[in-house]
Amino acid sequence: MSSHRSEPLFDVAQLAHIEIYTPKLEASVNFFKAFLGMQETERSGQSVYLRGFEEWYHHSLKVTEAKKPGFGHVGWRTTSEKALQRRVKAIKTTGLGKGWIEGDLGHGRAYQFTLPDGHLSEVFWDVGKFVASEEQRSKLLNRPQKRPLQGIPVSRLDHFNLLVQHVKPNKDFMVESLGFKVQENIVMKDGEEIGSWLSIDDSVHDIAMLKDPEGASGRLHHITFWYRFPSQVDEIADVAVEYGIPIITQPGQHGIARTRYIYLEEPGGNLVELGQGGYEILDPDWTPITWGEEDLSLALVHYGASFPEDFLARGTPPV
Amino acid sequence: MSSHRSEPLFDVAQLAHIEIYTPKLEASVNFFKAFLGMQETERSGQSVYLRGFEEWYHHSLKVTEAKKPGFGHVGWRTTSEKALQRRVKAIKTTGLGKGWIEGDLGHGRAYQFTLPDGHLSEVFWDVGKFVASEEQRSKLLNRPQKRPLQGIPVSRLDHFNLLVQHVKPNKDFMVESLGFKVQENIVMKDGEEIGSWLSIDDSVHDIAMLKDPEGASGRLHHITFWYRFPSQVDEIADVAVEYGIPIITQPGQHGIARTRYIYLEEPGGNLVELGQGGYEILDPDWTPITWGEEDLSLALVHYGASFPEDFLARGTPPV
Amino acid sequence: MSSHRSEPLFDVAQLAHIEIYTPKLEASVNFFKAFLGMQETERSGQSVYLRGFEEWYHHSLKVTEAKKPGFGHVGWRTTSEKALQRRVKAIKTTGLGKGWIEGDLGHGRAYQFTLPDGHLSEVFWDVGKFVASEEQRSKLLNRPQKRPLQGIPVSRLDHFNLLVQHVKPNKDFMVESLGFKVQENIVMKDGEEIGSWLSIDDSVHDIAMLKDPEGASGRLHHITFWYRFPSQVDEIADVAVEYGIPIITQPGQHGIARTRYIYLEEPGGNLVELGQGGYEILDPDWTPITWGEEDLSLALVHYGASFPEDFLARGTPPV
Amino acid sequence: MSSHRSEPLFDVAQLAHIEIYTPKLEASVNFFKAFLGMQETERSGQSVYLRGFEEWYHHSLKVTEAKKPGFGHVGWRTTSEKALQRRVKAIKTTGLGKGWIEGDLGHGRAYQFTLPDGHLSEVFWDVGKFVASEEQRSKLLNRPQKRPLQGIPVSRLDHFNLLVQHVKPNKDFMVESLGFKVQENIVMKDGEEIGSWLSIDDSVHDIAMLKDPEGASGRLHHITFWYRFPSQVDEIADVAVEYGIPIITQPGQHGIARTRYIYLEEPGGNLVELGQGGYEILDPDWTPITWGEEDLSLALVHYGASFPEDFLARGTPPV
Repeated sequence: MSSHRSEPLFDVAQLAHIEIYTPKLEASVNFFKAFLGMQETERSGQSVYLRGFEEWYHHSLKVTEAKKPGFGHVGWRTTSEKALQRRVKAIKTTGLGKGWIEGDLGHGRAYQFTLPDGHLSEVFWDVGKFVASEEQRSKLLNRPQKRPLQGIPVSRLDHFNLLVQHVKPNKDFMVESLGFKVQENIVMKDGEEIGSWLSIDDSVHDIAMLKDPEGASGRLHHITFWYRFPSQVDEIADVAVEYGIPIITQPGQHGIARTRYIYLEEPGGNLVELGQGGYEILDPDWTPITWGEEDLSLALVHYGASFPEDFLARGTPPV
Repeated sequence: MSSHRSEPLFDVAQLAHIEIYTPKLEASVNFFKAFLGMQETERSGQSVYLRGFEEWYHHSLKVTEAKKPGFGHVGWRTTSEKALQRRVKAIKTTGLGKGWIEGDLGHGRAYQFTLPDGHLSEVFWDVGKFVASEEQRSKLLNRPQKRPLQGIPVSRLDHFNLLVQHVKPNKDFMVESLGFKVQENIVMKDGEEIGSWLSIDDSVHDIAMLKDPEGASGRLHHITFWYRFPSQVDEIADVAVEYGIPIITQPGQHGIARTRYIYLEEPGGNLVELGQGGYEILDPDWTPITWGEEDLSLALVHYGASFPEDFLARGTPPV
Repeated sequence: MSSHRSEPLFDVAQLAHIEIYTPKLEASVNFFKAFLGMQETERSGQSVYLRGFEEWYHHSLKVTEAKKPGFGHVGWRTTSEKALQRRVKAIKTTGLGKGWIEGDLGHGRAYQFTLPDGHLSEVFWDVGKFVASEEQRSKLLNRPQKRPLQGIPVSRLDHFNLLVQHVKPNKDFMVESLGFKVQENIVMKDGEEIGSWLSIDDSVHDIAMLKDPEGASGRLHHITFWYRFPSQVDEIADVAVEYGIPIITQPGQHGIARTRYIYLEEPGGNLVELGQGGYEILDPDWTPITWGEEDLSLALVHYGASFPEDFLARGTPPV
Repeated sequence: MSSHRSEPLFDVAQLAHIEIYTPKLEASVNFFKAFLGMQETERSGQSVYLRGFEEWYHHSLKVTEAKKPGFGHVGWRTTSEKALQRRVKAIKTTGLGKGWIEGDLGHGRAYQFTLPDGHLSEVFWDVGKFVASEEQRSKLLNRPQKRPLQGIPVSRLDHFNLLVQHVKPNKDFMVESLGFKVQENIVMKDGEEIGSWLSIDDSVHDIAMLKDPEGASGRLHHITFWYRFPSQVDEIADVAVEYGIPIITQPGQHGIARTRYIYLEEPGGNLVELGQGGYEILDPDWTPITWGEEDLSLALVHYGASFPEDFLARGTPPV
């Protein structure tokens, strides 16, 4: 995968924020606040900025009103200002760069680019940290604010999953230009990689990519927020039934990444996963775990549930 | 339901033991011991007697070799010797009595009878208590033995579920002759009760009955053992995948009884549920919760999974 | 214990409600609502009526303003109107009866009496059931209302614990006049029973009694509400730290009853336990589990924590 | 902390293994195998090599017979062969280098050095991966072997905690020569840092250091293995009570690192923590969380338990 590079690259530090589009701004924001206990940091124009209560930055989620649901953009924070410069230089050589923007609420200037499949992305260094008010301040010095009393509050953004026309070019771009590691993937009998799980940290995925069964470009499959207790996944399931939030898959366990999950549909139509668990990859010469066509059901669902038939195609915007 | 009785009946105390048949005695016994951590108390002829580590009697499960898997018999313990006499008298008036037996390993003489659908049952008072060896003895005075170190050990037998040709006569017998309470049931649009959950204690079910989709008589749907932690249901799922035990439904949550579940198939072919949770019914004038045809999927699966199509027909012996 | 009775008594069905006193009515009510997610049913005079979201009656907790915190009264529901009459007759013979009252919000006429130690009690049959509004109604037919989105919501009242001058007379009264079963107790080397755990259902305790180390009469040690998930006990601990609710003992596990616990002090000064787990007693000839002086620390704390030295004396009102 | 370095260092990849000494080799090994479900990989001389079932290398724990319990050595794996060379060069400049060894079972040649406080350490690149036998092989491609059926099996080694005479020089060495990040620390009113939690990955600690209250050098405080479910910490507590393993602190929650813990004493006398949970640090310009003297109890125990008075001094070997 990175045979052209003698040593790993550490210039991107983390997934910092994601923007999603929704045709129902207030209903979507209410979903994230009332049920997932997220905090509204700020509003500007047609956008609302939100964060989980254990997140240190201004926001991890930007919800923007649009005609259709779907993917807005992703923001990656680099490990330093120099690392940012190095990555911009590398991106420019690919022809996918779009140029610098002055920044947004919550971060300074950023360099924008697209994935080969078209998904808007940015890298940046200067970030705005969240500062709790006196009343919000947690007694725990290592927690940015008090645990909220509303809903089943998520801790933080974990990863997101894109639908792409072809996995390989998008994966290669993330690996070669940004230094991501392929941790697990799915390769069919004909040799085509139809899914790839990549991360820049110790986890299995900060970003995952699935071949879009509809053959479309630029779609979002889902975004994922994280819980600290396994039973919180069951509690949000319970809440979803009570308050009429569509459950797309009941709580289960993925084979890939070994995470506990539930998939809900937020009012704007985007798929939202609530996850917990998983495993760490610290081995510096990790060989990506490759699941074959015959392993598909175990890869998807460790304990044997069946997913809705259209699950993999369930991207936004719908085609 | 018990309009003919001015006050509740308290003559049956509890589900004491169940006997199941298996064509693969050693493989079945190994399943209960190696994976569910059950304790073998004794063997006699083609039968092995087992108990969960938090059970106080000689056994809660008798596994007997037979040509086909299925239901052997159920043993109900009464609240006193006098209560036993009263129940025998009542059973005799129904014509379903079979007569006294001298007892079995683990209990004294018992009165045998069949349900209208033919399932062999018995009531008894004298019971043999389990006595831990010095080495097995728990430091906790309220636990009959140490927590075992093998498998994901079940605490105790919880309930069982029969398939019957017609629910009503079997349910009526349990209510009228033995004093059971109907806690929840399913009634179709045409008025037919196709499922009934009955208990003699504070739980939703010690015995449940489902209309056999195959129209057969005398079949067993499943037996259920209980865990103390919700995550033990996930751990046994994990173990099942690893060691090749068929998972019939992945971990989920029933609407009825609000219990957490997983269904496995033991090597003899019988369905075994591992459960946890649920709710208590203490209200003495509880009105049975009736789920209609339109509620069926929520009744079965609170959080929205689909069951295998043949799940309800999956009784033993197969027809 | 019940040698004078040939068969068990089943006239009392359940713990229905408890009244506590508080010098800070609004702060106490806010504690139960904001943190424990309880529902306010009604207010009358200096009293507020509350219930857990999985409780079917009008209220399980009545919080009444008073100069000092402490125990108001307990309400036991009988298994029938006839059972009520039988118990009233039996209570009258003890000289502890006080007479009938017309009822209260949430139940009909009740017969009041005191325990030998003076704690006000009542038995009643007619009860007011909670009816959810259209919006509150749960999709689950066996749940009285939706799971709330506020705090870490308790499911239901579980039991309460009194401090008494002498355990024996109070315990004997509960056993002989009301049919309670002693499930576990603590007996010192000198033969004195200093703690007794009694229940009228399958649990270890609906009521517990501890010898008051202060030698006082009529005091309350704590009331206990129940959670469905073990981790909810940790979550309420987390919330307690964040919002400044005094944690009297960190989450732990009792030897007696084998329940998971945390003890908080509500703003009025009363001790409130949040519990989960435990074990069932279905054996009709259960011998009470007796913990000796040498077992005390295991009885109190299974896993070995130390309690505050004044824990057992920490009753309300303070002396 | 790293003001002299303009960009972070990524040359050390992970904590690979720890060696502890025990005066009771077989009893210690039995503790790790029977209760923690660890796998014995190999034996050689007076040493036994063990690993958790979700670990990919030959071993994470080496248990070596010695007169007294205590710390043997720690092995850090680098991110590449070149990174190893760079670190060796840096270590040599400190005068703490000891020289190359040919390797050990499970890894190739390694460069040994000591911490300023004397703890033996090594860095290496070549590692021996564990290969499951046919029978041990997991169906999950991302798990190195089946989940064992013995005990409450730990997933993996997480971190370890040393007692040192002075925290600062040891911490500085880890930061400057090896690139560790100080994630949290404790600083007393007089300005002395008495505890430091450092990591080389996304966690709060791979290594922690506490000022030895006995003023000794070279001691071990504890080693920590990790569970995937919070309730496994309770289950090992239960098992510890049953089988007479000393519980040093009951299950609780640290403020620092926000991890769930229990501390047991293994038969050789070393302290073993079983942990779960915690939080991730991905922020590349993370400011270490500094707990002051007044925060000590919250830092140690989030939910308020008291630790044994000698807890911090409880190192091995005893002084």
